Amino acid sequence: MTDFSREIETLARRAREASRRMGEFGSRPKDAWLARVGERLEAAKHAVLEANAADLREAETKGLAGPMLQRLDLSEKWDAMLDGLADVAALPDPIGEISEMRVRPNGLRVGRMRIPLGVIGIIYESRPNVTVDAAALCVKTGNAVILRGGSEAFQTNGALVQELRGAAEDLGLPADAVGFVPTTDRAAIDVLLKQDRYVDLMIPRGGPALIRKVTAESTIPVIRHDAGICHIYLDAGADPEMARAIVRDSKIRQMAVCNAVETLLCHRDAARSVLPGVLKALHEEGVEIRGCQRTREIFTEASEATEEDWGEEYLAPILAVRVVDDLDAAIAHIRRYGSDHTEVIVTNDYAHAQEFLRRVESSTVGVNCSTAMSDGYRLGLGAEIGISNSRLHAYGPMGLEGLTTRKFVLYGDGQLRE
Amino acid sequence: MTDFSREIETLARRAREASRRMGEFGSRPKDAWLARVGERLEAAKHAVLEANAADLREAETKGLAGPMLQRLDLSEKWDAMLDGLADVAALPDPIGEISEMRVRPNGLRVGRMRIPLGVIGIIYESRPNVTVDAAALCVKTGNAVILRGGSEAFQTNGALVQELRGAAEDLGLPADAVGFVPTTDRAAIDVLLKQDRYVDLMIPRGGPALIRKVTAESTIPVIRHDAGICHIYLDAGADPEMARAIVRDSKIRQMAVCNAVETLLCHRDAARSVLPGVLKALHEEGVEIRGCQRTREIFTEASEATEEDWGEEYLAPILAVRVVDDLDAAIAHIRRYGSDHTEVIVTNDYAHAQEFLRRVESSTVGVNCSTAMSDGYRLGLGAEIGISNSRLHAYGPMGLEGLTTRKFVLYGDGQLRE
Repeated sequence: MTDFSREIETLARRAREASRRMGEFGSRPKDAWLARVGERLEAAKHAVLEANAADLREAETKGLAGPMLQRLDLSEKWDAMLDGLADVAALPDPIGEISEMRVRPNGLRVGRMRIPLGVIGIIYESRPNVTVDAAALCVKTGNAVILRGGSEAFQTNGALVQELRGAAEDLGLPADAVGFVPTTDRAAIDVLLKQDRYVDLMIPRGGPALIRKVTAESTIPVIRHDAGICHIYLDAGADPEMARAIVRDSKIRQMAVCNAVETLLCHRDAARSVLPGVLKALHEEGVEIRGCQRTREIFTEASEATEEDWGEEYLAPILAVRVVDDLDAAIAHIRRYGSDHTEVIVTNDYAHAQEFLRRVESSTVGVNCSTAMSDGYRLGLGAEIGISNSRLHAYGPMGLEGLTTRKFVLYGDGQLRE
Repeated sequence: MTDFSREIETLARRAREASRRMGEFGSRPKDAWLARVGERLEAAKHAVLEANAADLREAETKGLAGPMLQRLDLSEKWDAMLDGLADVAALPDPIGEISEMRVRPNGLRVGRMRIPLGVIGIIYESRPNVTVDAAALCVKTGNAVILRGGSEAFQTNGALVQELRGAAEDLGLPADAVGFVPTTDRAAIDVLLKQDRYVDLMIPRGGPALIRKVTAESTIPVIRHDAGICHIYLDAGADPEMARAIVRDSKIRQMAVCNAVETLLCHRDAARSVLPGVLKALHEEGVEIRGCQRTREIFTEASEATEEDWGEEYLAPILAVRVVDDLDAAIAHIRRYGSDHTEVIVTNDYAHAQEFLRRVESSTVGVNCSTAMSDGYRLGLGAEIGISNSRLHAYGPMGLEGLTTRKFVLYGDGQLRE
């Protein structure tokens, strides 16, 4: 096993030093950096996509599954990636903003000034566009970032990082604010997770094994971007047409995303009136229905759901379905099996809507809308670095604000305690 | 070594279950609980102070130092503790509050609802009044808390927790929302730090060894309430009288607190005009001055400061003093040796004041006021569970809001992505 201690510590220390400079910048140098990245990526498109093609060839040789290859392929996402970059540059810069200014009885003026978090480590899996998205958000908010993408995207990520850092060098800005773990060896992650002296936050985005490892080993605070075991609850008296449209949009629009619905709960009084239409439509579009006993009585095409199905993030054309006695039972099911991601009630009952919003503790709770609305752009955050299942600091879709913190600023004229 | 795995896991699991009930309460049951605690503590005053006296006797036998005994002694702080409890009960309840409500282009209404964090573990040292303060803040915010106080206060804490839990039992409320680690064996802490399944946040309040241990071993997110190596910078042209008063209040009012000043920096142009008066006043009140070479030339009573002095949290009548060339040098010194706690500039220069506020990254940054203003009550938070040196979630004095998080709430009428 290679020893990466010195290499990774240097990477982290340089990121810390760069973050000090980044934190002092106004918007202009940061936006100029992002604009220059856009120019350089346009110019380097051919080289980056060549690196991506090489990654794809290796992945195919290794026998990676179709959806994984799709996530890895950058060519289709190229324009969206550059649009996203321009969008982030155009967002208002939250750094330096002072809020909650108030005057204390002794005349001291107290406010809270928004500042960068400092250095953020992100460990993510196959999608190489995350490299540019995450770096752009961190640059915009005056942070430094250390990127560790999936090993199958290593060449693509390297090519992208070269342009991200090159843009800073072109402009005399601190290129070390975009750090890149220069190896696919997992031993480097072990070292990175111990750099609490230099790194302020670790964000693992990926499967349960990655999340578990980072949570267990990191001495740096962690915000998990974890599984989405999302639920829709069809209440008694739910509008059948709205129920059908919401469940369909939540499941079929995109299957392999964390805000897709995985389990449908249905009040027993809606089981005969609403549920069959919903399930029939899905089934006809090729979704496998795995139902509880009561579901299977109503919808005979359903296979039998086991205990494991309730805790499963399928990310596939499968839906678990359970008929429950009432709202309490639905909430209890969500608490037991959910992952604090996104839950929706379809109802026309005012009190039930309020109760669901109040009692369900997940990071996004909705009434009469698709679970697919749970996304930083749709909720008006302007951008998204991911969706946090951790309650601390940022819970749910995490935008620019989630990459910042606030310090207290005090304007005095000689105030003492005594 | 005793195995506490089962005992501590049960404690954490019960706290989690209790937190679910707490999270659903409106203000009334929580305030009733706190009122009942006040009544019970009044009635149990004699028994609690007997337990405290027993702890004090043991501590004396073990030869604990005077300041430690003072922190341990509850009798003098009894009334303040009960007043604090009543104050917390009287604060507005932040839970359920919805903010940042906005309408998206598709008509979806999106807001953020404040909810409890869940289960909070607090590991603290000798002061037993923290037991009641911390429990009251957690009850008020609908959280469950697991308390692990210093071993020297074990009997006092046990007696206090009996009343905290007893009050809940009197009213049929979930007493397990106030959990207590029922042993002084440190092996129990090791188990507690791994309960990420049930505990959402660990707050260590104490010395460097405790902070280091918790940061390194906890699989639960940690907010450090760490050392305060606070600085005052006397700018060129600082008002000599204001400088004298601010430094005196910041150092002498209370020595053994984290917001006391430990290092004084002085612009070289103020070294002859402002500094001697400041140092003379402190020296006459018994404060030892440890100065850099330039300080000792001006103030001959100063002993020599070594490199170690710049990083020292004295909590004692000692002040480190350094003459610097300019504001840049002052900020560089603070970045290198500070602990992200509280820094103050004394100046009459507008641009320097703004620059200091903007560039110093500590959690509280002030102009022309005492470092002792850095405290949740003084800054208008209503209460304080401690002062966080961690940037994530809560940076600086941490009040009720720091014990909560926000979920997204969505009010739709059929919104879909497609």
